[in-house]
Parts: sequence; structure tokens; C-alpha cells
Amino acid sequence: MSEIDGVLGVAVIGYAFMGRAHSDAWRTVGAFRADLPLVRQQVLVGRDATEVDRAARRLGWAESSTDWRSVLERPDVDVVDVCVPGHLHAEIAVAALEAGKHVIVEKPLANTIVEAEKMVDAARIARGRGVRSMVGFNYRRVPALALARRHVADGRIGEVRQVRISYLQDWLVDERAPMSWRLRRESAGSGALGDLGSHAVDQVRFLLGQDVTEVSGSTHTFVTQRPGEHGAEDVSVDDAAWATLRTSGGAVVSLEVSRMATGRKNSLRIEVFGSRGSLGFDLESLNELWTCLDGAEFPTRVLVTEPDQPYLDGWWPPGHVLGWDHTFTHQAADFLRAVADGDDPTPSFEDGLAVQQVLEAIERSGTPQNTSDARPEVVR
Amino acid sequence: MSEIDGVLGVAVIGYAFMGRAHSDAWRTVGAFRADLPLVRQQVLVGRDATEVDRAARRLGWAESSTDWRSVLERPDVDVVDVCVPGHLHAEIAVAALEAGKHVIVEKPLANTIVEAEKMVDAARIARGRGVRSMVGFNYRRVPALALARRHVADGRIGEVRQVRISYLQDWLVDERAPMSWRLRRESAGSGALGDLGSHAVDQVRFLLGQDVTEVSGSTHTFVTQRPGEHGAEDVSVDDAAWATLRTSGGAVVSLEVSRMATGRKNSLRIEVFGSRGSLGFDLESLNELWTCLDGAEFPTRVLVTEPDQPYLDGWWPPGHVLGWDHTFTHQAADFLRAVADGDDPTPSFEDGLAVQQVLEAIERSGTPQNTSDARPEVVR
Amino acid sequence: MSEIDGVLGVAVIGYAFMGRAHSDAWRTVGAFRADLPLVRQQVLVGRDATEVDRAARRLGWAESSTDWRSVLERPDVDVVDVCVPGHLHAEIAVAALEAGKHVIVEKPLANTIVEAEKMVDAARIARGRGVRSMVGFNYRRVPALALARRHVADGRIGEVRQVRISYLQDWLVDERAPMSWRLRRESAGSGALGDLGSHAVDQVRFLLGQDVTEVSGSTHTFVTQRPGEHGAEDVSVDDAAWATLRTSGGAVVSLEVSRMATGRKNSLRIEVFGSRGSLGFDLESLNELWTCLDGAEFPTRVLVTEPDQPYLDGWWPPGHVLGWDHTFTHQAADFLRAVADGDDPTPSFEDGLAVQQVLEAIERSGTPQNTSDARPEVVR
Amino acid sequence: MSEIDGVLGVAVIGYAFMGRAHSDAWRTVGAFRADLPLVRQQVLVGRDATEVDRAARRLGWAESSTDWRSVLERPDVDVVDVCVPGHLHAEIAVAALEAGKHVIVEKPLANTIVEAEKMVDAARIARGRGVRSMVGFNYRRVPALALARRHVADGRIGEVRQVRISYLQDWLVDERAPMSWRLRRESAGSGALGDLGSHAVDQVRFLLGQDVTEVSGSTHTFVTQRPGEHGAEDVSVDDAAWATLRTSGGAVVSLEVSRMATGRKNSLRIEVFGSRGSLGFDLESLNELWTCLDGAEFPTRVLVTEPDQPYLDGWWPPGHVLGWDHTFTHQAADFLRAVADGDDPTPSFEDGLAVQQVLEAIERSGTPQNTSDARPEVVR
Repeated sequence: MSEIDGVLGVAVIGYAFMGRAHSDAWRTVGAFRADLPLVRQQVLVGRDATEVDRAARRLGWAESSTDWRSVLERPDVDVVDVCVPGHLHAEIAVAALEAGKHVIVEKPLANTIVEAEKMVDAARIARGRGVRSMVGFNYRRVPALALARRHVADGRIGEVRQVRISYLQDWLVDERAPMSWRLRRESAGSGALGDLGSHAVDQVRFLLGQDVTEVSGSTHTFVTQRPGEHGAEDVSVDDAAWATLRTSGGAVVSLEVSRMATGRKNSLRIEVFGSRGSLGFDLESLNELWTCLDGAEFPTRVLVTEPDQPYLDGWWPPGHVLGWDHTFTHQAADFLRAVADGDDPTPSFEDGLAVQQVLEAIERSGTPQNTSDARPEVVR
Repeated sequence: MSEIDGVLGVAVIGYAFMGRAHSDAWRTVGAFRADLPLVRQQVLVGRDATEVDRAARRLGWAESSTDWRSVLERPDVDVVDVCVPGHLHAEIAVAALEAGKHVIVEKPLANTIVEAEKMVDAARIARGRGVRSMVGFNYRRVPALALARRHVADGRIGEVRQVRISYLQDWLVDERAPMSWRLRRESAGSGALGDLGSHAVDQVRFLLGQDVTEVSGSTHTFVTQRPGEHGAEDVSVDDAAWATLRTSGGAVVSLEVSRMATGRKNSLRIEVFGSRGSLGFDLESLNELWTCLDGAEFPTRVLVTEPDQPYLDGWWPPGHVLGWDHTFTHQAADFLRAVADGDDPTPSFEDGLAVQQVLEAIERSGTPQNTSDARPEVVR
Repeated sequence: MSEIDGVLGVAVIGYAFMGRAHSDAWRTVGAFRADLPLVRQQVLVGRDATEVDRAARRLGWAESSTDWRSVLERPDVDVVDVCVPGHLHAEIAVAALEAGKHVIVEKPLANTIVEAEKMVDAARIARGRGVRSMVGFNYRRVPALALARRHVADGRIGEVRQVRISYLQDWLVDERAPMSWRLRRESAGSGALGDLGSHAVDQVRFLLGQDVTEVSGSTHTFVTQRPGEHGAEDVSVDDAAWATLRTSGGAVVSLEVSRMATGRKNSLRIEVFGSRGSLGFDLESLNELWTCLDGAEFPTRVLVTEPDQPYLDGWWPPGHVLGWDHTFTHQAADFLRAVADGDDPTPSFEDGLAVQQVLEAIERSGTPQNTSDARPEVVR
Repeated sequence: MSEIDGVLGVAVIGYAFMGRAHSDAWRTVGAFRADLPLVRQQVLVGRDATEVDRAARRLGWAESSTDWRSVLERPDVDVVDVCVPGHLHAEIAVAALEAGKHVIVEKPLANTIVEAEKMVDAARIARGRGVRSMVGFNYRRVPALALARRHVADGRIGEVRQVRISYLQDWLVDERAPMSWRLRRESAGSGALGDLGSHAVDQVRFLLGQDVTEVSGSTHTFVTQRPGEHGAEDVSVDDAAWATLRTSGGAVVSLEVSRMATGRKNSLRIEVFGSRGSLGFDLESLNELWTCLDGAEFPTRVLVTEPDQPYLDGWWPPGHVLGWDHTFTHQAADFLRAVADGDDPTPSFEDGLAVQQVLEAIERSGTPQNTSDARPEVVR
């Protein structure tokens, strides 16, 4: 592996929303964890030379580039972090792995199962050569959710029986909101189900440490036409989706996602009910975890800012809350730790594929707009 | 109608949990509404002469009786309030209506569709003779929910699109909790679905003013055996149920009920999302309604104790909260108002039947313990 | 003591807000506690014969009267419950005690210290003859606060150090709200300090089981003139008050009361911080208590509806919340228990006097409108 | 002013808690605001050469130094950011201003009024030469509080009458917590009053845009001895403080700070009650503001993550919450904006002095351990 002065060179591909969040993480991870390899923000890659250069200066990068292929050949780049739209993930990630670069891919792993499977294959081969790969489900790095996962794993809530998970937003409530690429199946793949449901399904797998084995669900589009540039256009993705999942450990999960939930901005809510306790979380209050542990009868509001809670020892004294973007720093740190230790980071590309398979099974189980053909589906 | 001195004589059949709550209501309704007919707590009916007599003295009744049939013949009884177990509802209610008594029946209307249909027939005939009937879904009389219903009806949240309703309790979490009649299908009819789901379905119909037209769901029993008097016994009802409902107005409703939700004592939670607003409620905080109205972006916590809110003008100054049992007083008052005005009170026996039909359709759509035969069901 | 058939005859003097709440309690207490003497709602007393007769029928009383003195002579009246304005308390209560009747007096005990002291004297003499007396601080009977008191007494939060208590309402926010007797010193005695502060001070004494030994405070009137019948009138009582109290056990208490707290309807908030835990409460959510016990680090939200919590065994199953007016039923039950057992109920008239003394010391320590003469005051 | 390539060179003095938080801000501010001058993290200054060099690499600095005086002479340093303990503020800040460097000083401005006054003088002189200065009350840059300030300034809550502000922590609850420099008057100046009260007083001045004109208060030490290295030592600062403040606009403010509030980690709570609305905030939920505006009756929970709210247009889409440390980035941006525009940033050193004067007046008004000499104090 090409390391210069023990410092890992990083390239981020993409500089929009996710590219910027990942840039913040690479810029900050050294301050967060003093015991990790230092990183060098080597190159930011984008299509528009002027824009990407401007972004690179603002976001702390040494250089910019418009040619991701040439970046893969650079010896001063050890890590490639893929933040472009989903349909480009497979090509870049596979090439980067083949070039021997450690790879992070933003979620979802890919837009299709076929592409995701190719990526899994490439990751498996690369793994044999000590090349690491990870898919970026950053909510695994919310301290409260990492703490929840710890409580489940430690048996503090007993056997998990019933899980409720919903991810509600409201940015499509107004029927006059314009048509966009996100509302077309050909460009977006799916609607709320893919965008929000992927986080939800990953959390179920993460928190329970179990697989989803069976699903039954449906989707719906409440506003079927929206104003486009040349008049009304058909919306071809779902506004909301509902599913019931069964897990390998016998739990039953209700899942609901929506972009039509008036008054909810970014509300990923999770409730986990076990035989000896329960857990509750809302992403809009991401520093809080509600816990009933070890048979306790009533929920306790835990402010997750204590040094003995996950990720917190690298930050501030108790009571100094973190934000959404800190999760990317945690993610970068976990990735660097795995690289340094020669371990495989999680979630793996296999995890990313598993999420895609659950989502696809939900779509198969119900026909959008009409649930009358709904069938429960076994997740392949 | 037999009224003595303009005072309505009331008989309550049953003096357990519900009989006591209804007794409180009849004792209090005169103080709550000064403009209604006064009532006389004439007779409390039960099976054990000593016990029912003792209860009658405590609960404010003039007399007690062990013979409900003879009570139906008394000219000093105008209202019969049926608080016995569900399998006895039909016989008593039909007889009382035929005897010309106004009738309230505690929910659920009956344990079977067949019985419920008989009651609906009897109510229809009685109605023609000016005899009133009502089924006791008391949560329609929670002021916050009555206010929610008003907001929906007034168009304050626009067109209702998405509804989330859950009713979660935790009294069966412990797998050592003993077997009881409530956990046997033959005595209880169903488990969480019937007990909690009936309230939930009635609220959907009440709040939206719409019918449920299609359902898809499943049920599950997490603890399949429990200690009985003579060793382990099979539990034959559901611990939890899940369903997606479609309504006549095009809304989609997710419904979840459980007796295994650790840390939730009596949590009926409702969220209604419309095109111009939303509403939120939790029965554990029953004096609060969360509202986004008229396009507002964020939810407001309304303390429902103002005199211009439903039922509140009969109670205390603003900020003096009500309890669960006040809903029965409101129910009695609404019933008396209808009797006094010669109107038919709601919810009617037809409403009670409609709820039963939805629950039955949910059960049909999935087989307990195994959803692999699940089919969406059209509600008959 | 004059008891007919083992049933205690009760007279309530006054039928406005408090008279009605107390009537509800006497009507309900038999249903709440099966092991107490039964009561007979004998006579409701008021000034207007027609009105009081009408109220008596609605509120469940056998008779009405306009002559409280004659009621004191009746052998079928054992308990006199005084719900008239404060300046009439002393005369009626003293006469009733001298007539051998058990007496409850609504808070505050009296409008002046002199009157309160007379009442204490009368109560002491009566006590010697087995005649019971109590002042009606009903918030001692909120289950959550009774539970809080139990936790403090059991040492679950260690030594109490710091207490924060505020009682905030907003019914005077609008400067156009009209002048009334409540805003004139001659009729009301004081403003927020007396009305709301009396509850707050009683809670401090109750929860801690300690006396207030020293106070320092001030009061303020934000709206100094309000529209009267004949033009603007001066407001002569406080809109808000602030104080710091020291207790016999070394705790420091901050107290704040206001009728100008926009958005707060009836918010009595209490926080008690001890060396091993803390407690939190808000009257607007009166079924909840927030607890950190036995060194726990984070607060737990306890829904106070469990049968092993104070007052709850007489009501409904867990999760069925109570309202503000249930506290009066608890109060009546505690009073009856003391009468039946030959004990002295609490809070005593002495407790009522102690609260008055603290409030007076707060007023002495600061001059309304101008704190520049403020002095800490030793409570006499 | 010495600017190289239009990029401002920054030096931070100190690399502990605050030095690290400020380093994060300088590293991030370019990404936050694209329309501001770029900054160069030139040099980090500390006493231990090895440690500061190590910190500099982690925190993104080009160089480290152990000699702050020499740093003031460098032409590639334009901004000096002082993050050392309070007793060193005056010397460094005055020298830096005299050297023509723009200066930020962490709060509190200084440990004594005398020092603070010297700094104010130096800032005034420097200002005449276009040299900028600011004191770092970072909570002015919490978006929810900046929004609150906007609402007050816009008259959305009418005339401010009553303010409640408390800042509660619990890290000294355990009486076995050891003695430290923070608990000695000679090193720390004061206890909770100075540390937490300074933030609280600054917020009052900021939110209301008014001066504090009169105070009355007291302080208390609950645990008077703690284990030191050589046995028990006397604690010579306060554990908690209470005050009532009057402002130039006629508002009354209650203030309470404590390090003994079991279960509260970092809870700065603010309630502002006006004639037409109110505002509520808790630092433990720093992305939320509770608002009653324009005469609304009930509070609305506003999630402060919308692009039209203060500071939010530089971050993420709605619903993506920020953390405590983002406030330092906002602070750096505001400072850079003022430098770029040739304006004086706020809060000024004069603001810092004003806060110190209020705190000193609170201390004068009461004697620690004994309030019996308490006097209200006019703030000089």
C-alpha cells in the first residue's frame, strides 16, 4: 500500500452535499482521534474544473481534478471515497478496488442489485489483497444508535421482539413542489423507499445483528403529477412506503417511510421492544436515547455525551451535544482504524447488497398505487 | 318514554372495571352539564347479590339487582347501560331495545359479526320508535381527539393522506405472566387486535369521517405458552398485530397494536398527516394535542383545557387537566343530549359493526404466526 | 360525634369553583375507597337560595341552605367543608370547630396572619376534643407529588440541596384584561404571590418535610392600570413574585410565580436536586414524575398510574391517567381516614399558618415595584 | 493590515478544550461560508513544545510555537485568538491589539474588572486604527438563540416582561469529587457564578438588546470541603448562585446557576415572556426553539435547521441538526465578516466588561454562605 510518511492520502469523488460532508470528516478526523493514522486531503474530484477547484480550496483539499480515472493511478492516494450519484458507484468503486485503493461508497451501494453484486465481488477479491471497502451508512455512527446497538448486544433489553422504525420527512407535502430527477424512476430508482428505507433497513440489521428474512409491504404515491418545465409530469416513484419485516431471530419490524409527513423534517424514529427492556430514538434529537434496561419499567432519557459512550471520548465534556455531520467523522475514523489494524470495516458491501435486496423484496411484495396484488416476499 | 319527574332512570348491568367507570359517569354528568336532563342512578345489576349490593352503595346507586330481565320491565328505568363481557352484549341489548329502553353498550359491540348484525337490526327497529342506542367508544370523548376531529372536519390540515396509529401496552412482556381467559380464543375472541385494535379502527373512522375500504395485515404471538393452573398452556390469541388500511377518501393508515411494548402502559398514539397540516396525540398525555394547521411548518403543543375546546366548558379553568375517566362523563352527556333532543347518538351500533368488520378482515388477511398466506382484504 | 348509621354527614359551604370541586370529591370518595366510612352529601350552603338549590340538585346534595350557622347546629352534619372566599374562612371555621364539626378549609387558610392564628387556636382546642381539622392544599394529593415526597423521605435522592419551584400562568398577559376584585389588594390580599405562591411554599414544606427559615424576595406589577367600569384603575397586587428560601435542613429554594407567563396555563414546575438524585414535575403533565434515584445519572419518566404508587390502588389499571380534580377525592379520603382512625389529618391549620408566614416574609423582604429596600427576612 | 494573497493568517494561543474548539472552527469556516476571506491556520501556540507541535499537526496548523510574543510580530499572522486561562487574557490581548492584530478573546473577558477595563481601553484605541476585537460568547451563535434574538428584535413577542434563565450542571454533585484549581478563588475567580453565570448574563443582554441595571442575589457552597492531595481542603468558590435582575427596558430576570443539579449535564434553559408571546430554549436540545409569536396561545416546537434561519444557509438540508461546536464556526465567520467589511464585531470587549460588572454586582449583593447582608446592587 502506498503511504507517504505514514500519512494516508485521500481522494473524494464528488463535491455536492455528500462530498462536502465527507470532506468535513477527512478534515476533522485527525483532531477527533489522536491514535489513528494522519490523513492528507489530497485531491477532490468533480466534473466542472472551475467549480471543483473552488470547492477544493474551501473544503481543505490540496488539489482538484476532473478525471477520476487518473486519480486512481496516483501513488499519493490511498483511499478513494465515492460520493457521486448511485448509478456511478459501481464503475468507480470496482476500478478503485482493482487499483488497490481502499474504498468508501456512500449509501446506497448501487441503484441495481446487479451492480451491487458486481461491487460485492470486487470487494471480496480486493479483501484477499488487504484492500478495504465499506458502504457509508453513517447513522451507524450516531453515538445514541451505537449505544443502542451495544445495549442490544449486551442483552440489556433481552430478546428483541418488536421493532418500530419510521423515517418521515415533509419536503413533498406541497403538491405544487416541482418535478425533479428524484421523482423519476429512471433517474432515482425509487422514492422514499430507497432513499429513506435504506437507512431504516440498515438500522434494523445493525441494531439487532440479524438478517431480514421475510417482508410484506406496499408503496403509494399521493401526488401523482407535479409541475414540470413543460407542464404537468407524472411522478414515477413512491411518496411513502410501509412494510412488515421478519428477522432471522424472530423479531417483527414495522417500517414506514414518507416524504409527506407534514411537520417532520428528518425524523428517523426507532423503537425496539425486548423481553427485558426497550430503546427509543429520534434523529431530530440525535443526542438522546430512551432506555428501559434490565427489566426497568419506565424509560430513561439518556443524553449521549458521556465519555464512556460510543465515539464520545474524542469530543467534548459531557453535555456538549453533537450534530448530524459528526457521524461522518466517526465513519472516517472507524474506516481508518480498520485500515490501520488490517481489519475489514463494517458495514461491508455485502451489507449494502443485503439492504438493497430487502428494499427490492418490499417493492415486489406490493405494486405501487395498488396493493391488491400484495404478497409477502422471502428476501433472496 | 317513561320519565318520572323529568328525571331519567338509569340501570347499569355489570359492576367490574367498566361498570364502575360508567357509574362514575352517571353520578357526575349532572354536575358536568347543567342543561341536560337529570338522571337517577336507579339500579346496578350483577350476579352476586352481596357484592352488587355493596358496590351499589359505594357507587351511588339507589338499588341493586341480580336479574337484568326484570330490570328491563321497570317503568323507572329509561336507560340501560351494558357493561358485561362481550359475549353477553347481544342478548341484553336486544332485549332492552325491545323493551323500549335507550341502550349504551360498551365496546366492542359484540364478539362476533353475527351477534353484532342482530344488534344493528334491533337498533334500527328501535330507532323507528324513538329508542336510542350507542356503542361506547369512549376515546371519541377525549377532548384532544374531539378537537382533532374538528380540525380535520374544518379542513385545517387539508386532505388527509397518511395516518399512523398505534396502541401499545406492556402487560404481557413477562413470559411468566400467567395464562388467563383473555389469552384464550374461545373466551376472548382475539388478543391485542380486538382489544386495542377496535379503539384504533374506531378512531380512524371518527377522525377522518371516512370508511375503511381495504386492509392488509398480520398478527403474531411472541409468547406461545404460558403457565396455567395445570402446567403450560397454549396461548391462542395474538400478542400484537400490524395492518395497512385504505380509506374511502384515499388515505393510507398504518396500524400497530401490542401488549408486548416494554415501557408503554397505555399508549394510543395517533399521527394524522394532511396536505396542509398534521395532528399528533398520545393517550398517556391525553390533555395534549400537537397541531400543524393551515400550512404551518412546525407542530404546536396545545394544552386542551380551554373553554372553547370540546367538552371543556363544563369543567374547570384553563390548565386544569382531565383524566381518562372524564371521557365516560362526556359520553353520558352526549347520550343524554341525543335522548333529550330526539336525535340518534354516535357512534351507532352500525359504527360498532363496521369496526368489527375491519378487524375481521385484518385477521383474514394474515394467518396468525405465519404471514405467508397474507392477502389484502376488501372490507365487507 | 354525631354519626347516623355509620355514615358521615357532610356540608359544603360555597358552590362556586371550589365548592363544585369539593362536591365532586364527596360524591366520588365512596367509590374510590371501599374501606372508609360512607358519607352522606347532606347540605350545600350558599347565599342565593335559588342558585344554591339548583346547584345542590346538580352536585348530588340532599338539601341546600342559605344559613351556614344553622347548618352547624344540625346533628346530621359531621363534617363542614369551607369553600368560601378567604376573608370568611376564620369566622365559619372557628364556629364549626366550636360546634364540634370536623372542618376542612380551602387554601389559603385565611387572608391575614391574625385570622390564621385564631383558626390555629381553635383547631388546637378542638383537637383536644377529638375534632379534626385540615387545610386544603390539594396538590399534596397529586399522586406524582406524593410519590416524590415518598422518594425524598426514603432517602432515594440523598440530602436535598437545591430546589426550583415555579408556578406560571398567563391569564393576565393581555393589558386590556379588565380590572377585577382579584387585582385589588383590599379584596384579594395579594396577587400571584398569595394565590400561586401559597401552593408553591406548601409543596416545599411537604416535599422536603422541612420548615422555611429565611426568605429574600421581591414582587412586581407589570401592568399597573387596567380598564375598570369607570375608566382606568390602579392594580394594587403583584403580577409576579420571586424569592430565594432557605430551609431548616440547609436547602436553598428558588421560587417564582407569575400570571404573565405567555403560553403557560397552569404550570407548577418543581425540580428537587439532592446529593444522590433528583425529581422533576409539571402540573400540566400531572401524571408524570421525572426521577433520578439512588445515584442514577439520567432522569426517568415515570407514568404515575401504577397500583403501588400513592392513591393509585383505588382507581384504574396502569396507564389510565388521572385529572386535576381527582386530587380532591384523595383529599377527602385522607380526611375520612384520619377521622375514622382518630388521627389528625395533614396539612394542619398550623401548616396553613406557616405558609402564610413565609408569604408575608417575602412581601416584607421587598417592596412591590421597587426592590431597592429589599432585605432578607427571617420567617417568624 | 498584513494579508498574504488575500488569505488571513490566524494564530490560536492555547490548545486545550477551547483551543481545540477554536481550531476546529478555523479549519471549517471556509467550507461554511464561501463568501468570506479564506483563512490560513498559521500557528498554534502553547507552552510545551512537544505537545503543542503534536496538537498542531492534529488540528490542522501549519506551525507551532511556544512564544506568543514572537507570534505577534509575524507579518503572516493577521488574527490572534486567545484561548488561554482568564488571568492571561489581558496581557496577550492588549499586546496583540497594539501589534495591530485582530483579536478574539474567549469568555470571560478577564478575571478582574481592572484587567477588563484595560482591555476595553486597548480595544477602543485599536478600533480607531481599524483593528477589530471580540469576546467569544459562542452561545450568541447557537442558531436557535440567534433566531430568538431576531424574534425579540422584530417585536414578535411584544414587550419583554419576564425572563427565566438557568444554567445547570451536575459535575460537582458527588461530595467525594476532588479539589481542583476551579474550586479555589485565587485561581478561578469564582465558581458557578462566573463560569455559567457569564453565559447567562450575556444571553440576557443579547436576547433583549438591553442592559442590566440592578441586581439582587446570593451564592452558596453546598460542599464546603473536598479531598485535596494532602487531606480535606476548603472550597472557596460558589457551587450555585441565584439572582434577580432588572433591565433597562423594565424586564425582570431570574437567574440560577449550579454545578449540583443532579441529572443535568449542560442545561442552559431560557424562557422569555413578552406581552405578545414567549420563547423557550434548552442547550441540551440546541436545535430546538419553542415559540409563541404574535399573540399565539400555545408554544410551537421549531426545529432550527431551515435555510432562512440564522447560520443555517451555510450547512445542510432541513432536519440535519447541528452540534455545540458549530457555534465556534459561526463565531469565526461573523468575525471574518466584520474584518472583511471593516465593521466592529459583537460582542465587543465592552460587552464582556458589562457582563463582568453584573456578576460582580451579584457577588456584592450577597455574601457567600450567608445572605443576611444581601442588598440589591446598582450595576456600575
